[in-house]
Amino acid sequence: MADWPIPTKERMDEIFESSKNWGRWGPDDEVGSLNLITAEVRKAAAAAIRQGLAVSCSLDMPVDPAPDNPHPALHMMVQGGDDCLVPGFGLESTADFVGVAFHGMASSHLDALCHVAVGGKIYNGFDVTEVKSTGAQRNSVMAAKDGIVSRGVLLDIPRLRGVDWLEPGDVITPDELDAAEKIQSVEVREGDVMLVGTGRDARRTAKGRWSPVEAGMAGLHPECLPWIHGRGVAVLGSDGISDVLPPPQIEGWTMPIHETTLVAMGVHLLDNLALGELAAACAQFSQWDFQFNALPLRVQGGTGSPLNPVAVL
Amino acid sequence: MADWPIPTKERMDEIFESSKNWGRWGPDDEVGSLNLITAEVRKAAAAAIRQGLAVSCSLDMPVDPAPDNPHPALHMMVQGGDDCLVPGFGLESTADFVGVAFHGMASSHLDALCHVAVGGKIYNGFDVTEVKSTGAQRNSVMAAKDGIVSRGVLLDIPRLRGVDWLEPGDVITPDELDAAEKIQSVEVREGDVMLVGTGRDARRTAKGRWSPVEAGMAGLHPECLPWIHGRGVAVLGSDGISDVLPPPQIEGWTMPIHETTLVAMGVHLLDNLALGELAAACAQFSQWDFQFNALPLRVQGGTGSPLNPVAVL
Amino acid sequence: MADWPIPTKERMDEIFESSKNWGRWGPDDEVGSLNLITAEVRKAAAAAIRQGLAVSCSLDMPVDPAPDNPHPALHMMVQGGDDCLVPGFGLESTADFVGVAFHGMASSHLDALCHVAVGGKIYNGFDVTEVKSTGAQRNSVMAAKDGIVSRGVLLDIPRLRGVDWLEPGDVITPDELDAAEKIQSVEVREGDVMLVGTGRDARRTAKGRWSPVEAGMAGLHPECLPWIHGRGVAVLGSDGISDVLPPPQIEGWTMPIHETTLVAMGVHLLDNLALGELAAACAQFSQWDFQFNALPLRVQGGTGSPLNPVAVL
Amino acid sequence: MADWPIPTKERMDEIFESSKNWGRWGPDDEVGSLNLITAEVRKAAAAAIRQGLAVSCSLDMPVDPAPDNPHPALHMMVQGGDDCLVPGFGLESTADFVGVAFHGMASSHLDALCHVAVGGKIYNGFDVTEVKSTGAQRNSVMAAKDGIVSRGVLLDIPRLRGVDWLEPGDVITPDELDAAEKIQSVEVREGDVMLVGTGRDARRTAKGRWSPVEAGMAGLHPECLPWIHGRGVAVLGSDGISDVLPPPQIEGWTMPIHETTLVAMGVHLLDNLALGELAAACAQFSQWDFQFNALPLRVQGGTGSPLNPVAVL
Repeated sequence: MADWPIPTKERMDEIFESSKNWGRWGPDDEVGSLNLITAEVRKAAAAAIRQGLAVSCSLDMPVDPAPDNPHPALHMMVQGGDDCLVPGFGLESTADFVGVAFHGMASSHLDALCHVAVGGKIYNGFDVTEVKSTGAQRNSVMAAKDGIVSRGVLLDIPRLRGVDWLEPGDVITPDELDAAEKIQSVEVREGDVMLVGTGRDARRTAKGRWSPVEAGMAGLHPECLPWIHGRGVAVLGSDGISDVLPPPQIEGWTMPIHETTLVAMGVHLLDNLALGELAAACAQFSQWDFQFNALPLRVQGGTGSPLNPVAVL
Repeated sequence: MADWPIPTKERMDEIFESSKNWGRWGPDDEVGSLNLITAEVRKAAAAAIRQGLAVSCSLDMPVDPAPDNPHPALHMMVQGGDDCLVPGFGLESTADFVGVAFHGMASSHLDALCHVAVGGKIYNGFDVTEVKSTGAQRNSVMAAKDGIVSRGVLLDIPRLRGVDWLEPGDVITPDELDAAEKIQSVEVREGDVMLVGTGRDARRTAKGRWSPVEAGMAGLHPECLPWIHGRGVAVLGSDGISDVLPPPQIEGWTMPIHETTLVAMGVHLLDNLALGELAAACAQFSQWDFQFNALPLRVQGGTGSPLNPVAVL
Repeated sequence: MADWPIPTKERMDEIFESSKNWGRWGPDDEVGSLNLITAEVRKAAAAAIRQGLAVSCSLDMPVDPAPDNPHPALHMMVQGGDDCLVPGFGLESTADFVGVAFHGMASSHLDALCHVAVGGKIYNGFDVTEVKSTGAQRNSVMAAKDGIVSRGVLLDIPRLRGVDWLEPGDVITPDELDAAEKIQSVEVREGDVMLVGTGRDARRTAKGRWSPVEAGMAGLHPECLPWIHGRGVAVLGSDGISDVLPPPQIEGWTMPIHETTLVAMGVHLLDNLALGELAAACAQFSQWDFQFNALPLRVQGGTGSPLNPVAVL
Repeated sequence: MADWPIPTKERMDEIFESSKNWGRWGPDDEVGSLNLITAEVRKAAAAAIRQGLAVSCSLDMPVDPAPDNPHPALHMMVQGGDDCLVPGFGLESTADFVGVAFHGMASSHLDALCHVAVGGKIYNGFDVTEVKSTGAQRNSVMAAKDGIVSRGVLLDIPRLRGVDWLEPGDVITPDELDAAEKIQSVEVREGDVMLVGTGRDARRTAKGRWSPVEAGMAGLHPECLPWIHGRGVAVLGSDGISDVLPPPQIEGWTMPIHETTLVAMGVHLLDNLALGELAAACAQFSQWDFQFNALPLRVQGGTGSPLNPVAVL
């Protein structure tokens, strides 16, 4: 692979500016690159269903505290089998409650376009203060209320490199995206959900869980952003959080992938996916594209959603 | 339509017994009629995608108290735009929390096979006490961890009857299921997700929200159960809760549709869907079948899940 | 009793202005009239303990939905007796979770000085925008972190009027405060917690629960505010919310008691107390003063707290 | 100090049996040793208020994840100052939500008598299965619904030993309880709340937070149990959890202090208190007894409560 230096501040500013889709779909647009998922794209996605196989790309609800899960989800029974007779009704029933602050490192979730700001602005130039204490009044997860149903493509970087997993801090470069496409005989197209596998599941299984904040995580080099923008990616997902941790030292930028996709491009992100099972299925069938369904909860004013995305091969 | 009396206790017992799939897929099976969603079924479902249109079948997260929502969901911001700089990190970010005890009358949700018991037994004969205070050890929502991806069929009963909506307490009979199929030129087949529309959305819009417990809700006559069993339905959904409220007076039975589908057949239920938009789309394209995706959160030990099912026409 | 007209806007403005304690305890003070609870006051409060009797002034945690409780509290088991062995540890243990958005009409709670603003300002002139989406940076409940421990006095208005309870919308006038003091042979003094009983418990028991927002609640006439200010009340509490509902029609004012006590005076409020048992005990012993303990949870940035205040006679 | 070996299983069984208060206050009693807090005790407690000083004994609500706080509490704003106008009402108001699974190592809380079982039995011989998935039907926190208002005594063990804090795993022996009483000129009496300080606050401040489960915590030797029982202690509290961690290796026993106080004696426990400020005040005034108020939330069926106990010197 070629050498890819960390961008200077000037180069990073340029990447951000040249990736901007602000105004592209009108001044009031809150949907962003989901606009690229047209009826034709959805029909093409349906054509990618060849095996009739559905594969979850989600981790389990993260109820157990761990180094990568300092704010565990809540799952509690409201009524169990020991006391299941509904008073005055006669039905035997059990029930539970589930709740989560999903923007962590352990929860498979969708980032809405209000989740990140740059210089006080969110996608399409709205002010981040429109994200109120009572909920987002702009760019909420309701942009994806009818679900993200499109063609998905998995780029399996450990497979490309011939390793079981990438190490924390490993950086994926644009030429690797090209090389993965080539070796997998697949191409990321306009309107696609682009998934980047880093082998995080495998590493977690082999080595145990770690804190991405303290010990790092593999992710994309900022120079992948023009690549993503050029392809017209609708949604970007990863088993990590797409960004590298610790982040590259670029003045004025903290998580350049989050900042540029969510804010400049209006590209929703899928973080902390589980891609190991999907990668195995793709390799088995030599099929790296599929229908991909990510169906967020309809939360008015939400900044994203926990969800269980499913690939259908 | 023919006259359909309320079943006697003996008849209801017989319906339940003759609907039983216990042991059909082995003594340890916890998946039930999801077993009917084969690769072939999923491929056929993909073929039903003709318009490339995705339509949500979910209500919004029910955060507002209402007569049909006595236990509202929680949606609260963790960090808003007024204070969005992540301390010590530099990212401008907003985040929220969402939580819900979803088994109510206002939340679109999936019922897992542990949600209801009859005589202390859940699907496949497991004891309901296996549903512990710490979570279900049998028949949890993890049965559907890879999502419910199948062919869906909507039977639009108000359209059949030439009304805008069914009234609370209205009972849908098996011959109406036949008639809806005929008039819509569609057929419920093995492995399908069968959706029964009652016009609840339209009535709610026109007349305001009401308490199904106090004022009733339209649903299926218990004699629809043999019909459903005969067709090999994999999952049953409705904009109501499939059962009629107030329930028919049958000794020993409270919610016969819930009790027979979940417990005897091992058929998962989708409650409180929003089917108005889907019905309109189906009518517009004269297409009453579609790919149907219901992707529950992966909650270990969960009794179901809030979710946003999406039909793809 | 004399006739007490609803104040004009000018009179209400005057009441608010003349009640202001802004700057009285310095420009950075966030404690307000809790400053009046001195060591001497606490010692005098101890002297009021004559019977050795402790009486709760709190409702039960409001987990049941009701007309006065549209956002019920959450109480869920984490681990019950059916599965109580802690894995890998050997202890048999049960546990639960409790959570509440306590500022409702059904939860006994303390209002911190950041809970209400007038014209964008909270107590001592701080801007309400200092109450961030991430928590209050000014006037949080931490002002009462060492508890409110003072002398309490109950003024029992139904007893004064010779009725079992006040009706929703009933207005308590300043001369009634004087009359209650006289008939009870007690006097509200500087630093006291002043409790005003309206018989809400008794009415709820007799007539069932009602929605204070729709059907009203008894409370104090705005002309009681100068009375309260003149006495140097430290904290004001009621079995209602001190304000009358529906509120008096005064241009620019919505809940004049909340607005003037919390914002102008810096007087914390105790809402939705249960005072029936206390009133009975006070009458039994002809003792209307007592030590009063209200001990809020220490929530950094909190706008108040659920709590269980206890009077010690 | 004398040498205090770890009890054998036989000795521990004997301690447990000889500490039993089962039946002492009747077969249906659920209040346990709170029965010892009589009116006389409360009046004596009032007499201990000499300075008029109120001191919180609670940690802040544990919202931040830490080694000793794997399940952080939830504190989230419902409405902040950026959007504080209540729709359709006109009030400017802010509000929040607080929730916690309080039985951890970071939350100051009360353990109800249903919290721990030995051999399937809770205090007074009730079966632990009476603690249902829907809440405790026996020995809930409602036993303390009128608050714990009694005389408190602090035994300051680091002060006795001439150290700043005890180290994790350090064991406090009965002769140290005697010695602390003597050096402090105070005596634990029937009906008292006995508080044992280990200097945990000071150690946490100096050395940072640690995981008591992994790294241990100071606590009481099991031979302190007869001492506690002999004195007629009503409630036991500590800045730790009273038990030593890791627990002493005694066959059949895991946390002998929890097991014997809660189950045999019916003595409620206060865990994870903050006692540094109280210890300083006690030392300053050479006053080691005080009125002690611990006022749990009234949670029907609760296994305890988060709370903010306050000592009044």
